Amino acid sequence: MSSPFDEDKPRDGCGVFGIYGHPDAAYLTYLGLYALQHRGQESAGIVTSDRENFHWHLGMGLVVNVFDEEMLSKLEGDIAIGHNRYSTAGSSSLQNAQPLVRHIAGELVAIAHNGNLVNAPYLRRELENKGAIFISTSDTEIIAHLIARSGQLYFEDRVVDALLQLRGAYSLLIMTRNMMLAARDPWGFRPLWMGRLGEAVVFASETCAFDVIKATPEREVQPGELIIVTPNEIKTFQFAKEKHAFCIFEYIYLSRPDSIVFGEIVNGPRRRFGMQLAREHPADADIVIPVPDSANISALGYSQESGIPFEFGLYRNQYVGRTFIQPVQTAREKMVNIKLNPIRNVVEGKRVVVVDDSIMRGTNCRRIVKMLRRGGAKEVHFRVSSPPNKFPCFYGIDTPTRQELIASSHTVEEIRRYIGADSLGYLSIEGMLSCVKNPDEFCTACFDGRYPVEFTDQTLQQLSIEFTRGRKR
Amino acid sequence: MSSPFDEDKPRDGCGVFGIYGHPDAAYLTYLGLYALQHRGQESAGIVTSDRENFHWHLGMGLVVNVFDEEMLSKLEGDIAIGHNRYSTAGSSSLQNAQPLVRHIAGELVAIAHNGNLVNAPYLRRELENKGAIFISTSDTEIIAHLIARSGQLYFEDRVVDALLQLRGAYSLLIMTRNMMLAARDPWGFRPLWMGRLGEAVVFASETCAFDVIKATPEREVQPGELIIVTPNEIKTFQFAKEKHAFCIFEYIYLSRPDSIVFGEIVNGPRRRFGMQLAREHPADADIVIPVPDSANISALGYSQESGIPFEFGLYRNQYVGRTFIQPVQTAREKMVNIKLNPIRNVVEGKRVVVVDDSIMRGTNCRRIVKMLRRGGAKEVHFRVSSPPNKFPCFYGIDTPTRQELIASSHTVEEIRRYIGADSLGYLSIEGMLSCVKNPDEFCTACFDGRYPVEFTDQTLQQLSIEFTRGRKR
Amino acid sequence: MSSPFDEDKPRDGCGVFGIYGHPDAAYLTYLGLYALQHRGQESAGIVTSDRENFHWHLGMGLVVNVFDEEMLSKLEGDIAIGHNRYSTAGSSSLQNAQPLVRHIAGELVAIAHNGNLVNAPYLRRELENKGAIFISTSDTEIIAHLIARSGQLYFEDRVVDALLQLRGAYSLLIMTRNMMLAARDPWGFRPLWMGRLGEAVVFASETCAFDVIKATPEREVQPGELIIVTPNEIKTFQFAKEKHAFCIFEYIYLSRPDSIVFGEIVNGPRRRFGMQLAREHPADADIVIPVPDSANISALGYSQESGIPFEFGLYRNQYVGRTFIQPVQTAREKMVNIKLNPIRNVVEGKRVVVVDDSIMRGTNCRRIVKMLRRGGAKEVHFRVSSPPNKFPCFYGIDTPTRQELIASSHTVEEIRRYIGADSLGYLSIEGMLSCVKNPDEFCTACFDGRYPVEFTDQTLQQLSIEFTRGRKR
Amino acid sequence: MSSPFDEDKPRDGCGVFGIYGHPDAAYLTYLGLYALQHRGQESAGIVTSDRENFHWHLGMGLVVNVFDEEMLSKLEGDIAIGHNRYSTAGSSSLQNAQPLVRHIAGELVAIAHNGNLVNAPYLRRELENKGAIFISTSDTEIIAHLIARSGQLYFEDRVVDALLQLRGAYSLLIMTRNMMLAARDPWGFRPLWMGRLGEAVVFASETCAFDVIKATPEREVQPGELIIVTPNEIKTFQFAKEKHAFCIFEYIYLSRPDSIVFGEIVNGPRRRFGMQLAREHPADADIVIPVPDSANISALGYSQESGIPFEFGLYRNQYVGRTFIQPVQTAREKMVNIKLNPIRNVVEGKRVVVVDDSIMRGTNCRRIVKMLRRGGAKEVHFRVSSPPNKFPCFYGIDTPTRQELIASSHTVEEIRRYIGADSLGYLSIEGMLSCVKNPDEFCTACFDGRYPVEFTDQTLQQLSIEFTRGRKR
Repeated sequence: MSSPFDEDKPRDGCGVFGIYGHPDAAYLTYLGLYALQHRGQESAGIVTSDRENFHWHLGMGLVVNVFDEEMLSKLEGDIAIGHNRYSTAGSSSLQNAQPLVRHIAGELVAIAHNGNLVNAPYLRRELENKGAIFISTSDTEIIAHLIARSGQLYFEDRVVDALLQLRGAYSLLIMTRNMMLAARDPWGFRPLWMGRLGEAVVFASETCAFDVIKATPEREVQPGELIIVTPNEIKTFQFAKEKHAFCIFEYIYLSRPDSIVFGEIVNGPRRRFGMQLAREHPADADIVIPVPDSANISALGYSQESGIPFEFGLYRNQYVGRTFIQPVQTAREKMVNIKLNPIRNVVEGKRVVVVDDSIMRGTNCRRIVKMLRRGGAKEVHFRVSSPPNKFPCFYGIDTPTRQELIASSHTVEEIRRYIGADSLGYLSIEGMLSCVKNPDEFCTACFDGRYPVEFTDQTLQQLSIEFTRGRKR
Repeated sequence: MSSPFDEDKPRDGCGVFGIYGHPDAAYLTYLGLYALQHRGQESAGIVTSDRENFHWHLGMGLVVNVFDEEMLSKLEGDIAIGHNRYSTAGSSSLQNAQPLVRHIAGELVAIAHNGNLVNAPYLRRELENKGAIFISTSDTEIIAHLIARSGQLYFEDRVVDALLQLRGAYSLLIMTRNMMLAARDPWGFRPLWMGRLGEAVVFASETCAFDVIKATPEREVQPGELIIVTPNEIKTFQFAKEKHAFCIFEYIYLSRPDSIVFGEIVNGPRRRFGMQLAREHPADADIVIPVPDSANISALGYSQESGIPFEFGLYRNQYVGRTFIQPVQTAREKMVNIKLNPIRNVVEGKRVVVVDDSIMRGTNCRRIVKMLRRGGAKEVHFRVSSPPNKFPCFYGIDTPTRQELIASSHTVEEIRRYIGADSLGYLSIEGMLSCVKNPDEFCTACFDGRYPVEFTDQTLQQLSIEFTRGRKR
Repeated sequence: MSSPFDEDKPRDGCGVFGIYGHPDAAYLTYLGLYALQHRGQESAGIVTSDRENFHWHLGMGLVVNVFDEEMLSKLEGDIAIGHNRYSTAGSSSLQNAQPLVRHIAGELVAIAHNGNLVNAPYLRRELENKGAIFISTSDTEIIAHLIARSGQLYFEDRVVDALLQLRGAYSLLIMTRNMMLAARDPWGFRPLWMGRLGEAVVFASETCAFDVIKATPEREVQPGELIIVTPNEIKTFQFAKEKHAFCIFEYIYLSRPDSIVFGEIVNGPRRRFGMQLAREHPADADIVIPVPDSANISALGYSQESGIPFEFGLYRNQYVGRTFIQPVQTAREKMVNIKLNPIRNVVEGKRVVVVDDSIMRGTNCRRIVKMLRRGGAKEVHFRVSSPPNKFPCFYGIDTPTRQELIASSHTVEEIRRYIGADSLGYLSIEGMLSCVKNPDEFCTACFDGRYPVEFTDQTLQQLSIEFTRGRKR
Repeated sequence: MSSPFDEDKPRDGCGVFGIYGHPDAAYLTYLGLYALQHRGQESAGIVTSDRENFHWHLGMGLVVNVFDEEMLSKLEGDIAIGHNRYSTAGSSSLQNAQPLVRHIAGELVAIAHNGNLVNAPYLRRELENKGAIFISTSDTEIIAHLIARSGQLYFEDRVVDALLQLRGAYSLLIMTRNMMLAARDPWGFRPLWMGRLGEAVVFASETCAFDVIKATPEREVQPGELIIVTPNEIKTFQFAKEKHAFCIFEYIYLSRPDSIVFGEIVNGPRRRFGMQLAREHPADADIVIPVPDSANISALGYSQESGIPFEFGLYRNQYVGRTFIQPVQTAREKMVNIKLNPIRNVVEGKRVVVVDDSIMRGTNCRRIVKMLRRGGAKEVHFRVSSPPNKFPCFYGIDTPTRQELIASSHTVEEIRRYIGADSLGYLSIEGMLSCVKNPDEFCTACFDGRYPVEFTDQTLQQLSIEFTRGRKR
């Protein structure tokens, strides 16, 4: 449940959708991408195969704005993959929009990728040294080159060759004229599901994309698994095995509450985070309100566990677009009230518990506290349904840098003072993990710095250097 | 709290905003319209006056899409009015976008109008007979003609002349090179507020537009009042007096819950509708869920009064745009799940009370009930936080025709059967009125057919005939 | 033969086209406007009637850019009028694009107008005083108001009523749901033709628009004639009679050489101007070259009469668009060589006669002379195939103001010195008139100031004041 | 002098422009491309280097439509290359627009290419086998891959490595952050010039691009020469030597008459072709007219040599755009009169010699003959200022296939009968060559099939197969 364009929120790393063997492939992909819109609002793209040629359309913006009826009607064929992008790496331009389409070894290939490779700078430099040419700054292009340069004869073997060189997070859909391949990294950072719609096979980042087309979820693509759909059969390979490292942020913020992710409907752990938060950080207060809409469910959990009544105390304007015009001379801080407004007769004279899902820079929370006080709140008790965010993510969530993460250099008390709340409580790491099944299968690097896939400092540096070159206007 | 593009919801009749005497007039109007976006998503427009010339830009779509920084920067001047439109009368095209700009008697005039005139067909025919030329099909053009043809010398007297001929709902902002006039019909159907931002005078349909620019609400423009802001003074006239007829639908659905409308923060009556509904139609159930987001507050009221726990059982996709592509061959009924999806672990095995704000055609409710059953709900008890909608509105809310309103020809039991709920309960008219201050000052025509401003059958017929001619491509 | 976007050329005053009773009315109008593109490149519009409704599309720019296949296909009906505009009066914006569409006295009316009314300011003020509202600044809107306010019962009588109040130049096409009316001012300033395409009746500013659709020219609409095409008959009225005043500039520059205008193929008088020029201003020279393409024919005439060989000495780039980006800091003078370039091996070492059709400000000629000298010309003898342009046109050609017309305040010798030519010769008024049939039926006001339709100084002043108010962005 | 969108004309193969070391690099490139517009109207692009980053903008359409002021202002830097494209190979889409920008071996590289490689299919297959990935279908991408894969250390050596593998026509501009390289194939098929603008170095396909920016032409880049402009010096290498094979079609049709190409102002040979044609195929006729505008000069030559008066007998509408809407049900033949129209009083009753520059399919000539007869011509003698076009070009001019070239399978008499002329005369190959300097340095393959650079049949077949895959919508 992503609230778009909150500069204080972690950004997400893309949604992917694929369908194999359905006459309405393009339209169903359109619906699927629409359901996955919360995973990326920067660009959208669909590529179809009519078994001879590819047809595609990519554009900047929301799915509903990128496509119109005429365009969709031209995307012929019964195989399709689609992609919603929020830039994790690579500058923000049509150049980097996905799916990527390339001629590889005499074959047409399209790739849609959700995740982030930690060895991308290394792989890119190696490839460049061997004469590979790059157009975009996206990781996906690296994957294409690795496939192209594999010595293997069969396309699926080329893909395995490539996958074995990747380190980091990836949930991939690869399409050729006749095949679709779905792969998930051995750690399983990002979700990827397989389902059925009659005879057709479908893949999606989250099951909500199946609901919208009335497809049946079948199972998650397993970490380290490659599924190959051909005209005749569906094959599966376990190409690698690692200790699982599911991204806990999918539960905290990223995935839709109605999706099944990592074996559970997201609403479950998300609400339990709120309940556990109430146990860890109770408050002597009159009402519990969420920062809408991303904290609705955890706030409700807090209310249910604490017995403090749930209320809607902040109204969120739903019409924010990509291009809201900022006043020239004004700092960010002044801007929050274009989106949120206190409902005065709810908060006035009340001791308010306000629940948010996470704190990145802290500026947004500060504005919310101010806004509630201006609305008449007697006390403001800030509660966060995740632990302090101290470390950046390198596996596909576009968090601020370490310097910008307020919790990386400030104590909880210092943060409380900065945001101006009467009290501040974060969920503990242990508490958080107690709310999920198989807690040791989750990645908590953004809280504790224990990165499950290593990288060197040099790599890190290059992560930022490489990607600032050659911006397209 | 309007959910855009629900074909089963009443549509709204525009939002207006004006500011007099501020160097950033255009930008503040942009912010004001953004806050009023829920009142109309079809077109948006801003006209400014630099005291010599007018500058304007109008376009189809949301405020954030219609304007960009360059455009705003060209809208010079310290006086501005703006308009968000949802078509109540007149076909949907740029032709009908507002504010209307005209040369009248050697003066430049811009008009922004929220409401609907019941004597528009009569006035239009009369004017045409006298040689008036019409371009659009909007009521606003009629008002412009009446002003132009008044024999009065002073502009404000011309306006009063015109207003005295209008019957029906109007909240008007009129701008000349040097003046701004704000008028509200004598019945007070639609809201209109006046506020201050430093030295500047501001007007808006709802106070939420003042919050976003940090202006101070001062008072409602009174029914039958004309306020005239000139370079030297602010004058006010009471040009007519009628028994008040405030639109109760502003409380049920149309206004934002954080706005002050008709003397009260909307959240107040809206929640009380839910509470009263719980008293009138209790249910033996496990959870109460809203049809998000428009019924959030009344559902919470129902939960609080009944003691049945409040839950989020339906997820609403927030990225619906104006141009969602419908599958060619599919009926409306199939489409609901692009926007709503049940959260299975909330509703599964539960006896669910689902609260909606109103029922127009019933198709949407029917889909919601089906969806909840598919999501595993054991029982579905539908509750509506307003009385049965039996009569169309002629005062500025774009309801379906009488034939299309399911409650006009069906009993509650028949409707229950149609939508497939286990039980169905509507709020009573008396119950509804018991939740508002000064209940006899409200219009309840859409429930009981007691139209406070009369019109002839002939007029009615022409309402539909006149407005279907001359569609622009 | 208009060369678009020559800032030193007179601009033209629009082209009109109409067709009554053909299933492909919109497409044929598109072709007709395309053939008349040289008469106006600012905006284009088509309105069709399907006998019940109007359908229209208007846009800024060239016909080929304004319309696409989808749009044309929506313009249903067997009656259509179209318009190419270059702004003679009224600011340049979509607001002023034609044909104008209005609801008049319960009827839908579309008007396309070529010309300029000298009593427009007076009529407009009168109408405003009587309560008429204006949107655009175009004369055409005045005509619409006069029709609307006529007391006559029948539409054609209303039109006659209106026409009798107009003074100045107009070639008009008026369309209702069922009728088409064509009218030409009693002086006959601008051309207007009637033709046949099978059963269909067609009208156009020039016959070249008939050629492109293979229609047969029938006759000119007579000065002071109103032709009315109804479902049953074609009627004609002579509503007024004045001494004819055909615009000689149609022969000099504006009309296409392949069109029949004022009873003759334009190529005829245009070439004779060049021949007469050779007789009046011979030159001792090696070659004759035109300023391409508008002076091609008169230069050829000069060559044929003088015996000096005709050559192409200047290359004209044909790809100039409406939006050529000018270097920020550079004067106009520097810009000419984006369009013209000397062909060095033609002019080098030669004594060159260069023929242009007219001189307005002189800046363009000055650049051409420089360019030819830079290209190696030994001598440059400038010849102009029309007399010195001393007076502005008020009948539909957008000439510079009197102050800007170099010939209004400078002798021929002064102009020669300014443009830097070795000699300069203009065609004499008598010489010019000796080249046309019925010379006393032509208007030569731009050369001798004898305006055939009078206007007051006050009117003149208002011509410029009125039209600068209320610019749309 | 290219007339755009004549389906019966050979198409051209792109224009290139480059400038090194000028603060207004982008704007001057814009002017240069504008002057070279006749070489390609499908897409236009400019890439600049600010010595650290590249900035670019590419778009479909004419230069004046692709760029606006804001865009140009963002193209920072003092080095730039630009490209006008007409597709010789590769489907028509933005994908194939040039200049191409790539990351190659850690360097940013932009390439603009005019020509066509006959060993492209072979090189592409080889590269694909070695793991190279292709996005577009253009030859230019092959060149980029060859540079990337060279084992050489220095960039210029990599370029030489690549050039030595190319066979066919290429005039190339290559830009890195700090360098510009200009190369021309050893046969010299296409022109390429070097010039100076103060300190800045400029390159362009034709010298007319220097005239527009007032740069001084210095010399042609020699066949087989690579010029390298670095911050410190200008170096030159002769990387290969072959017998010259200048494209004679540059003189016949492609280049502007005011450009210096292959050592001569194009106007010279072009006019001599007409004079020689008059000697080889005299006619007993009253007038000579050109098919405007491409045959203007040769027709004038014919007139001068034969003594038959030159006339303008066909008017050409200059406003044809890229998207002219064709009537759905009509064959091409019906369409010609949208562009050309006879000037009746010129041709009526006359024996007319009409001169065109070449005949491809013959359909256009057939329409012209018909049109002239309809215009009243007594006799029509068709003369062509080039020999019969029997063979397709593989060196960068987009001629029809052999099957479509009427002269490949028909005698002159058969063609005469097909086009319906009274007589038909083509220029002889010997006659043509007698009009140019160093006749043995020209390629005449399209007339005599003697291709100076060989290719296999298999290659030919692949030329068409490869390029039809993977069309973008």
